[in-house]
Amino acid sequence: MKTKLLAAAAALALALPASAQEEPQSRSSSEAVAQTTTPAPSPNEIVESATPEEWVSIPAEDLLVMTLAPDADGNPREVVIQLMPAPFSQGWVENIRTLARAQWYDGISVNRVQDNYVVQWGDPGYDNPESGETEQKPLPEGLRVMGEDEYELIPSAEHVERILPPLPGGQPLTSDDLRRRMSHLYIAPNGSRDTYLDGWPLSIGFPAFSGLAPVHCYGMVGVGRNYSPDTGTGAELYTVIGHAPRHLDRNIALVGRVIAGMEHLSSLPRGTGALGFYTEDEAHKRTPILSVRVSADLPERGRREFSYLSTQSESFARYAEARANRRDPFFIHPAGGADICNIPVPIRESEAAIEGE
Amino acid sequence: MKTKLLAAAAALALALPASAQEEPQSRSSSEAVAQTTTPAPSPNEIVESATPEEWVSIPAEDLLVMTLAPDADGNPREVVIQLMPAPFSQGWVENIRTLARAQWYDGISVNRVQDNYVVQWGDPGYDNPESGETEQKPLPEGLRVMGEDEYELIPSAEHVERILPPLPGGQPLTSDDLRRRMSHLYIAPNGSRDTYLDGWPLSIGFPAFSGLAPVHCYGMVGVGRNYSPDTGTGAELYTVIGHAPRHLDRNIALVGRVIAGMEHLSSLPRGTGALGFYTEDEAHKRTPILSVRVSADLPERGRREFSYLSTQSESFARYAEARANRRDPFFIHPAGGADICNIPVPIRESEAAIEGE
Repeated sequence: MKTKLLAAAAALALALPASAQEEPQSRSSSEAVAQTTTPAPSPNEIVESATPEEWVSIPAEDLLVMTLAPDADGNPREVVIQLMPAPFSQGWVENIRTLARAQWYDGISVNRVQDNYVVQWGDPGYDNPESGETEQKPLPEGLRVMGEDEYELIPSAEHVERILPPLPGGQPLTSDDLRRRMSHLYIAPNGSRDTYLDGWPLSIGFPAFSGLAPVHCYGMVGVGRNYSPDTGTGAELYTVIGHAPRHLDRNIALVGRVIAGMEHLSSLPRGTGALGFYTEDEAHKRTPILSVRVSADLPERGRREFSYLSTQSESFARYAEARANRRDPFFIHPAGGADICNIPVPIRESEAAIEGE
Repeated sequence: MKTKLLAAAAALALALPASAQEEPQSRSSSEAVAQTTTPAPSPNEIVESATPEEWVSIPAEDLLVMTLAPDADGNPREVVIQLMPAPFSQGWVENIRTLARAQWYDGISVNRVQDNYVVQWGDPGYDNPESGETEQKPLPEGLRVMGEDEYELIPSAEHVERILPPLPGGQPLTSDDLRRRMSHLYIAPNGSRDTYLDGWPLSIGFPAFSGLAPVHCYGMVGVGRNYSPDTGTGAELYTVIGHAPRHLDRNIALVGRVIAGMEHLSSLPRGTGALGFYTEDEAHKRTPILSVRVSADLPERGRREFSYLSTQSESFARYAEARANRRDPFFIHPAGGADICNIPVPIRESEAAIEGE
């Protein structure tokens, strides 16, 4: 017994708990398991087998490219944010394009990193030696002031039709079985339902509110604001780096999500001040933001291009079902459901663009 | 209008979106809001007003102190893990004490950091120049081999009694109101219910399984394993650094949670290899673990001491309800419910121990 345990432990050492989560072809999975039957496909395998038509190209006008100062080893750090398309939060999204095109974001910094919560960037302020005051950078002309009613959207009949994903056919499961399982997929923590519209996670009202609102999943980007009735301009932004803070849904504007370079934000040192802000003694930890550009304004050659897996596609439905009920080899008990934030919309970078770099 | 917007933006700059989440006394909240009525207490304010009797001291036998190598600036890095008490996962917990007491963990490293998923530590292996093989450190004698049935627990009548928290009395809310609200608190993503037992988040079965199982919330610590029927020894451990991967519940043993120093793990650089493992070129990024000790084995003077807010206390019930329905000044729409992983059990470090340091 002991010999077997040691042998297992040795095989174990670099390929563990969640070895099956993202990459089933890890070293130990190929070595350790003699497959006797075809295993159920992993969520990633389903995504990899999606047809080209199931991928939706993201317009360059919806991509923000944020360049941070290089890291301590001199490595470049680029973050790409996908802005939400209509009909959500469009006033703030337009403000953000205005701020980017005015190059207003250039020279600001990441000022707050609160563990299991948010990374936030904005104007850290400038100490004016003459006045002794901390001064802020003036904002550009043309920013809109948004109302709180824009945090959610009353859906049209057309939206309702688009938010129900079609069920896949031709799977090992019968449609009835799948429909039953999918009816459990998107239960929100407040007992309401969550769903997707055009590639974005949404919550569907609850007793007092009948609208749709984007969900604060990991990597989503929102607009900092002061106390109500302030709604924020878009000059101060944050992204989620922990368990989805759903209490912020409908209380703040979400405008997009980080689709590349998230690790450059999530691995930053946590601030030790209140709310995870860097204290004055930690001002050197603020990460400078060199520039933020709308991708459409960059030279076409060399632009990074991305697409998302249509949330109305058959492959997405199969992927979501597989995330909710893992049957690939590592797993023993399928969960019977999944939080919408555990079913992130698959994003891929165009290889042509990568080759062109 | 423009002047007001600019003024608001200036006040905004360092105190934003979730300013109300953890610390309502941020700079802008005191400056910006003229309180006309007493605001609803924040979850943290409720915790701060809990009585001494509502706090439960954590035994030194249940605390692991893990010392990482100092960071690049020479700052010490200490992580404290609370091991789960009976009745959960006790075979693995005992293995972990055995490994710590054999000083087996000393000299291993953090080998995997996968964004929005896990940080994992264990034996990175040693390249034997004579054999050309990668060899593992031999495990100590006396480790138990656990069965998969230990991933969940069939609750006794006494457990069932303890998992239902009492409702608070004497609050601005009527008990009926609160009971109604609390009935929505802990809906699991698969439509089942989540709850607490003796300070730990638990899921309550679902159709095919009737037992209780610990929940993979942010900061929970689990035991790496190979493919079933392997269940892991405890030599390889991980902690969650993203949205709760609930698909791992009942599929792997949870043994505890990080209660101090989480930021030393969550902010580590992400690995670029498969599953977030550091590649051979990144071997220098592996964070060395200098030692792991059971706190009870350390000199009594200077030991760090912690307690948790009893999940059966009235203050916990009020705290949980306030997390599910934020009414403190920043918020407009209470959510009507919260994921159990958004209601972390409050932990505090004993001031006496801090003073004694």
